[in-house]
Amino acid sequence: MNVDGTHYRTIWLAADGWAVEIIDQTKLPFNFETVRLENVEDAAVAIKDMLVRGAPLIGATAAYGMALAMHADPSDVALERAYDRLLSTRPTAVNLRWALDEMTKLLQPLGANARQAAAYARAAEICDEDVDICSAIGDHGAALIKARHDETGDTVHVLTHCNAGWLATVDWGTALAPIYKAHDAGIPVHVWVDETRPRNQGASLTAWELGRHGVPLTIIADNAGGHLMQEGRVDMCIVGTDRTTASGDVCNKIGTYLKALAAHDNDVPFYVALPSPTIDWTLDDGRDIPIEERAADEVTKIQGKTESGEVITVEIVPEGANAGNPAFDVTPARMVTGLITERGVAIASKQSLAEMFPEKA
Amino acid sequence: MNVDGTHYRTIWLAADGWAVEIIDQTKLPFNFETVRLENVEDAAVAIKDMLVRGAPLIGATAAYGMALAMHADPSDVALERAYDRLLSTRPTAVNLRWALDEMTKLLQPLGANARQAAAYARAAEICDEDVDICSAIGDHGAALIKARHDETGDTVHVLTHCNAGWLATVDWGTALAPIYKAHDAGIPVHVWVDETRPRNQGASLTAWELGRHGVPLTIIADNAGGHLMQEGRVDMCIVGTDRTTASGDVCNKIGTYLKALAAHDNDVPFYVALPSPTIDWTLDDGRDIPIEERAADEVTKIQGKTESGEVITVEIVPEGANAGNPAFDVTPARMVTGLITERGVAIASKQSLAEMFPEKA
Repeated sequence: MNVDGTHYRTIWLAADGWAVEIIDQTKLPFNFETVRLENVEDAAVAIKDMLVRGAPLIGATAAYGMALAMHADPSDVALERAYDRLLSTRPTAVNLRWALDEMTKLLQPLGANARQAAAYARAAEICDEDVDICSAIGDHGAALIKARHDETGDTVHVLTHCNAGWLATVDWGTALAPIYKAHDAGIPVHVWVDETRPRNQGASLTAWELGRHGVPLTIIADNAGGHLMQEGRVDMCIVGTDRTTASGDVCNKIGTYLKALAAHDNDVPFYVALPSPTIDWTLDDGRDIPIEERAADEVTKIQGKTESGEVITVEIVPEGANAGNPAFDVTPARMVTGLITERGVAIASKQSLAEMFPEKA
Repeated sequence: MNVDGTHYRTIWLAADGWAVEIIDQTKLPFNFETVRLENVEDAAVAIKDMLVRGAPLIGATAAYGMALAMHADPSDVALERAYDRLLSTRPTAVNLRWALDEMTKLLQPLGANARQAAAYARAAEICDEDVDICSAIGDHGAALIKARHDETGDTVHVLTHCNAGWLATVDWGTALAPIYKAHDAGIPVHVWVDETRPRNQGASLTAWELGRHGVPLTIIADNAGGHLMQEGRVDMCIVGTDRTTASGDVCNKIGTYLKALAAHDNDVPFYVALPSPTIDWTLDDGRDIPIEERAADEVTKIQGKTESGEVITVEIVPEGANAGNPAFDVTPARMVTGLITERGVAIASKQSLAEMFPEKA
């Protein structure tokens, strides 16, 4: 999407044709900086330290990580090491494993001298495929926004949680793709942006990317969404997901479940936008998804900009206080109005998903 | 309660016998500082700027504000001005109006020369009554914690939102009184402390006061509570309230409703602790309570401590981003398991409240 009028993707080949460049998302929303990845360790650290985040972008970065590994050493040992190193970075990201498996399936049978070119070609293809998928999600979701606008004749107010925007993918985003498509088509849309504690991906990333593209938004505390729904000020929720079960349970950023409960209680449609590679066809029950417990200092400290423009980290709890930090939660399928996929909007059920993706089910 | 072994109340008469001292709660959790109030304007600013907060403490401070006004000038005009000035500080605090009405009812019929002594005496009495009420709430609530401990034989995990502790009252607190009573009685209790964005009263005040008294706690993002309930890691929720309708709808800090939804969905008991003066007997429907919209910079900025120990405010959103800040929400009575009052635990219904407080209903 656009950053003040210039089009960007989140990952691209450097001018030298072999290194990879990304946006360092830990520097947002205060500084827009790009980082050069030159080897598999750079790619692993970029994923682990969340310079890149979001299921599709993690997958794309892992794919390019494999390409960088093949650039340095196209041996079987290097291939295996790169796979293991990259897979270890984020346990809940099903896209990560998918991209690594894709690359391995392609590269393993090839001779060492053919691997580098094949890896770069496939990584580029994975990126393009993701853009196509997100664009299709955007089209299907924008139709829902348009239908609501046709119904009310008014601005459509969409609540979103975390960041499932173009910054989380290669371009367009998942949850935000429908919003960008609607906005670009001239449908008046306004976004309630959940701050998304403790990492504040909403207040920092979602607010940044929507604002830079020109979409009207209001940042709210995660606590506020239920009240806004009670007051009829939310037309629909659209969120992303890190992992969706074959039965339509949705594992997404911590707090998603609370918004789904509020939407359910107030008859607000609750949509989850997802590229089909984030569906885990091996799982039927979301409660079987292991939930990552992240570092306590994500809760006890926060990054912000001082009056003099310096970005610093400050402590926001009493000295020595204990903190817990589960990073995801599971929203049961019964609370999901629809799953917006690249093939259309499915009901969050095993049957509906199986009908939409018969080759997987 | 205790601060590292020394007993404090939140408001007390200064050594000179006429000025009033309070804890500046905006300085917590980083600095423990007391402030001297010498006139009605000091008291109004202390309420408005939230140096004191929490319905009962606001009432107590308003009562002492009236006493300070009478100390300076016991005329009818001064009495009326003090009432109006103090009432204007916080629109949703029903306790504020209650305390001011109590004082006015007492002072108006008196001659000017009798007003000062009467005002100080009644303000002290309002404080003592609040301590007695909170202590009784603590006893009734501790019985619920004890019953759960008897059932499981294990530590009782209580989730709380915002700060309804002794810092929000004169002593003991409302939601935290049962926890202090249980802890002091040797029942093992652990508290999940919601951070409570945007003002972070949980992460700062609740964590501070529980920690200083020695109660085990874990601070969590507001987003985490639903997941913890899904996992069976919360035995009960206990929250406070700013205003409760005669039918048991509960207006409390923004985000309370989301926790009530999660508790309801996971069969976790959801209790609201309240002194009966916070019941608004004139209201039947919580949706009629006006919700205060506070300044956007409570969402866009945050206060924290730097590595060098300086307390500063940093910006946490993209430059120029818009923010919304509704400060309260309403939890419908149907989601409240019980109202813990000074007279016992009522069902959140018009009938049950009327039976418990027949003289009011």
